[in-house]
Amino acid sequence: MYHIKELQEKVNHSIAKSEIGREPFSLYAPITYTLSVGGKRIRPVLVLLSCNLFSDDIDQAVDAAIGLEIFHNFTLLHDDIMDKADVRRGNPTVHKKWNENTAILSGDAMFIKAYDFLLNCKSAKLHQILTVFNNTALEVCEGQQYDMEFETRNHVSETEYIRMIELKTSVLLAAALKIGAIIGGASDTDTNLLYEFGKYIGLAFQLQDDLLDVYGDSRVFGKEIGGDIVANKKTFLLIKAKELANELDRKQMEVLLNDKTKSREEKINTITLIYNKLTIKEITQQKIQEFHQKAMAYLNEVSIASERKTELINLAETLIQRKK
Amino acid sequence: MYHIKELQEKVNHSIAKSEIGREPFSLYAPITYTLSVGGKRIRPVLVLLSCNLFSDDIDQAVDAAIGLEIFHNFTLLHDDIMDKADVRRGNPTVHKKWNENTAILSGDAMFIKAYDFLLNCKSAKLHQILTVFNNTALEVCEGQQYDMEFETRNHVSETEYIRMIELKTSVLLAAALKIGAIIGGASDTDTNLLYEFGKYIGLAFQLQDDLLDVYGDSRVFGKEIGGDIVANKKTFLLIKAKELANELDRKQMEVLLNDKTKSREEKINTITLIYNKLTIKEITQQKIQEFHQKAMAYLNEVSIASERKTELINLAETLIQRKK
Repeated sequence: MYHIKELQEKVNHSIAKSEIGREPFSLYAPITYTLSVGGKRIRPVLVLLSCNLFSDDIDQAVDAAIGLEIFHNFTLLHDDIMDKADVRRGNPTVHKKWNENTAILSGDAMFIKAYDFLLNCKSAKLHQILTVFNNTALEVCEGQQYDMEFETRNHVSETEYIRMIELKTSVLLAAALKIGAIIGGASDTDTNLLYEFGKYIGLAFQLQDDLLDVYGDSRVFGKEIGGDIVANKKTFLLIKAKELANELDRKQMEVLLNDKTKSREEKINTITLIYNKLTIKEITQQKIQEFHQKAMAYLNEVSIASERKTELINLAETLIQRKK
Repeated sequence: MYHIKELQEKVNHSIAKSEIGREPFSLYAPITYTLSVGGKRIRPVLVLLSCNLFSDDIDQAVDAAIGLEIFHNFTLLHDDIMDKADVRRGNPTVHKKWNENTAILSGDAMFIKAYDFLLNCKSAKLHQILTVFNNTALEVCEGQQYDMEFETRNHVSETEYIRMIELKTSVLLAAALKIGAIIGGASDTDTNLLYEFGKYIGLAFQLQDDLLDVYGDSRVFGKEIGGDIVANKKTFLLIKAKELANELDRKQMEVLLNDKTKSREEKINTITLIYNKLTIKEITQQKIQEFHQKAMAYLNEVSIASERKTELINLAETLIQRKK
């Protein structure tokens, strides 16, 4: 069995040696830039870990793993244009470093490169793998669309929010596990159990992200605390707070979040106080735990000796308990 | 053998009955809008015609045909954002009718739908088909990148220009023919001959477009004459004129094309006069004929009775001799 660190290195090594660029270099430079900036390589590691549950030959899954990582980075590239985000992982985003047209077109080319890597996959189940990938890719777009729509809506229900993050974040983690399992030769039952495991880990992962934005340590988190509050983003915390607040607090929240004259500090402090009063932190942690338990129940059913599952369990815990 | 009209109807019918939309409708509405606006359906018709050369069962190629049409429309959608084009086929472009974010994201989803249709293809040669498609898609992006780069360059050579239009326009027509032939069961030799045929038809097609922009009849052409001149676009005509002009005329052209104070009419009239003096129209027509002949030589070698090639020959002639 491989360790997470080894797999991350394998992924980074494969990305570094893959020759993505050719002429015109101006099209490919933003792609290699985006991929070199790094990140945790969660999705490709999940592909390899999942394959490794069923097979010791994980090299057969490397191309699919890289394909998923490229796809993920493509979505970030285009999302950053739409969200007008200037910085990603401490570096200027592509549309800032180059320009918007380059970001659109290099993003498109990057998406095609993701398919290229998936097509390299020597699996007899290529059609099944591509179908999973394609359905997932479409769902990720749907998630981004809902996310943008929620920005202009006043009310978003908890159910709607969970569905949005399932589409935008969870299904890709789930698909990574599913594709890895298919390549590793898993049964359909195990493949689907791993998909469900990934889906719930993804939900917990995103709620942890929401939580860190308010209750994280900015020195560890790597970005400023309270960004979601200032942006009036409908996170799990805000949705839950609006649901549980009394009339007075709800009114205060709504006025404050929409008030452009109020300072960043005032917004963050006041909203956090209301969150504290309503025990939003604990409610969110409980929800995270609930998703985590659901995920573990699915993983438990996968017909593999439990000692082979250790690394996957570790990774899931890292994702959920992360401080950054 | 099917006639072009029948195939266009088949394509339109298949697009109309394909259920592309689901929730969120805001993501899918721009896709159905773009596809319903129509166009000549050249690429899917080429897929079907090419398949029909080798097989009477063209239904097996319909999904691939629709996939290519969706891909082509996706490239137009994203190109229109980059080119800041407000109108396409007499209708507002997606980024005008909705907004830029919608155009980016719906474009991405559209691209994924193109793969969906290709994946539906029941061919045993799916891997080969997807590889052709993927390579072509990347080349189309490269073509668009060169096209944008040429805008900011002062000098573009004829060779560079031909390579750019080969990537941006020709390879997709070529790939349509190649994919149709693969599905129809053609030999590798015939498949590659049809690719070359399509490539040269594509080059002739694009030069005809350049020609119509200056020498077309605006009532038939459907857009205003001289748009390329006003935009200082490095078309085949301009590149050739700069190459053949004397020092004085070249200087006049360069100053005029970059002069923002000069009227549209003055630019068009003066440049056209220089074109006329240099017989640019005839030179371009000759180049078109040259490409057409090369294309026909490749088609001639395809090991199919010549009477089966009639419709393909007709379509090629329509594309090259078109007035709009």
